Amino acid sequence: MTKIKIAQFGLGPIGIETLKLAATKPWVEVVGGIDIDPEKVGKSLASITGEPAMGSAMVYRTLEELTENVQPDVIFHTAVSKIKDAFAQLEIMVRRGISVVSSCEELLFPQLREPELARRLDQACKDGGARLLGTGVNPGFVMDVVPVCLTGVCRQVKALHVQRVVNGSTRRGPLQRKIGSGLAPAVFERLFKEGKAGHAGLKESAALIAHCLGWDLSELIETGNAVVASQDIRTNHVEVKKGQCCGLHQTAVGKVNGEVRLTLDLKMYLEAQNPRDTYQIEGEPSINMVIQGGVAGDAATVASLVNAAPRLLKAPPGLLLMTDIAVPSVA
Amino acid sequence: MTKIKIAQFGLGPIGIETLKLAATKPWVEVVGGIDIDPEKVGKSLASITGEPAMGSAMVYRTLEELTENVQPDVIFHTAVSKIKDAFAQLEIMVRRGISVVSSCEELLFPQLREPELARRLDQACKDGGARLLGTGVNPGFVMDVVPVCLTGVCRQVKALHVQRVVNGSTRRGPLQRKIGSGLAPAVFERLFKEGKAGHAGLKESAALIAHCLGWDLSELIETGNAVVASQDIRTNHVEVKKGQCCGLHQTAVGKVNGEVRLTLDLKMYLEAQNPRDTYQIEGEPSINMVIQGGVAGDAATVASLVNAAPRLLKAPPGLLLMTDIAVPSVA
Repeated sequence: MTKIKIAQFGLGPIGIETLKLAATKPWVEVVGGIDIDPEKVGKSLASITGEPAMGSAMVYRTLEELTENVQPDVIFHTAVSKIKDAFAQLEIMVRRGISVVSSCEELLFPQLREPELARRLDQACKDGGARLLGTGVNPGFVMDVVPVCLTGVCRQVKALHVQRVVNGSTRRGPLQRKIGSGLAPAVFERLFKEGKAGHAGLKESAALIAHCLGWDLSELIETGNAVVASQDIRTNHVEVKKGQCCGLHQTAVGKVNGEVRLTLDLKMYLEAQNPRDTYQIEGEPSINMVIQGGVAGDAATVASLVNAAPRLLKAPPGLLLMTDIAVPSVA
Repeated sequence: MTKIKIAQFGLGPIGIETLKLAATKPWVEVVGGIDIDPEKVGKSLASITGEPAMGSAMVYRTLEELTENVQPDVIFHTAVSKIKDAFAQLEIMVRRGISVVSSCEELLFPQLREPELARRLDQACKDGGARLLGTGVNPGFVMDVVPVCLTGVCRQVKALHVQRVVNGSTRRGPLQRKIGSGLAPAVFERLFKEGKAGHAGLKESAALIAHCLGWDLSELIETGNAVVASQDIRTNHVEVKKGQCCGLHQTAVGKVNGEVRLTLDLKMYLEAQNPRDTYQIEGEPSINMVIQGGVAGDAATVASLVNAAPRLLKAPPGLLLMTDIAVPSVA
């Protein structure tokens, strides 16, 4: 078996977990990492991750420094949520023929917010012979790829609805803060409107579904509201008083010719009961499905990135969507 | 939009339904049909299907006669369950560069029973520049593609279990007979052992899952038992006395190094209560899912075939698996 040479861009918690999972796979050879943190540059990944399986792979400050020493086939990019911020990082990778699996939420469906940057990234991929993919668990799976996949046995689809309920109390500190825990509800809602709080990628999930179903959305509207704590809540990471925000209720609603055809409804809050992912496809046949307990977030995000790499390398060069490449599977 | 030129091989009930669904799609141009029935040869598909949208497309007796008149891009092949019986039909299609979506159950994972014929079909596809795919709803989706897809967000999978319960009373007459309705239980079980009754493709579903998960099965064992009617049952198609067979309970169990890792459990019987498809993935994370009411069979089978065509044409030539091509979606 020829191993896939992997490098990691961004050595924050998700990046480290991605690398550690990748290193457990028999088809992976970890060759290096990239991070601007001077505490990490020049160190070995084995020392940073505590995993001897990383061997002699080092952390470099830039892609140039990395590629002077090693030639990865795939870079896992876990750094930013916006394509604008990711563009320069990604473009030089794919121009050098290095394929990229990114957790950048907007890349799930880059044509939505950044069609011109998407066009340029696609061209850079084709020029360099590389593939670029945005994925994760949400966006990237639970609220987009799974419902699209279900429609594969439908003669036609009239409407598609997904509800996800996540118990924030079981998640990492950064997520507990991202959902507004401890803020005044009005402050959270202002931050949401300014794009500084909330879940990134919900509109991208909706746009990807519409794209796959051939729906030309006349409107795609996103809302974000605070979930208000009905009692004091304390987790390992945050403290919330009764009346403060303890999470978010975010929706994306897509209309075709003025009619609602698509709703994505996401609740992530502390002490949420009965976490689950629920699907209704109204069509021929209709399909009603529930993932009991939901798909646990953090382990799944990292797995989604790592599992995508071998499938991505089998696809033709270009900026690709999750629904362009082969059916997901554990790799 | 360049339309995909479609022809239909086999004008039985499923073939007719496939054609009728295909004709509703804006990306399809129906160009012809193939059947040996002298009642159909030489007639127009419009007259046979009652759909004027078929235009002037005709029924031919052979592929040769069809291709003297029209050049399909894709043939839907709904004729037989065994690769041995399908081989000669399929090989001349793909050698002529015509891609094929087939309902032949063994083609879901042809390497299982017919590795040499599979190799020859793959070579014929590559020689002719065509793609060949076996799909449907089961096998082809509910008990294989769906659970594989779920593992795409797993760090690792220890075991995978699927249970499908189908209420035979809501299905077509041929299915009600295939599951043994009205036979003595011992007769059904003997016919099952002889390969003359039961659900085709369950072992193929198991083998496809194992292939995708990288599991080398040391054993793959199939069982089939009669479900015995506890009272008299009468449907639109069959009559069953108390004590006779009213359906089947079929399982496929896969072991890795002697340990059970994979179970597919299928119950199809008359008056089955609470039809559903249930999934347990034991892994990181574990996933528990249920499709309430299950995926209705016949409409979904036809949809699965038609929806696969545009995805198949985007894949490279060869004998392909459902998990080799892009994520399913309604087309």
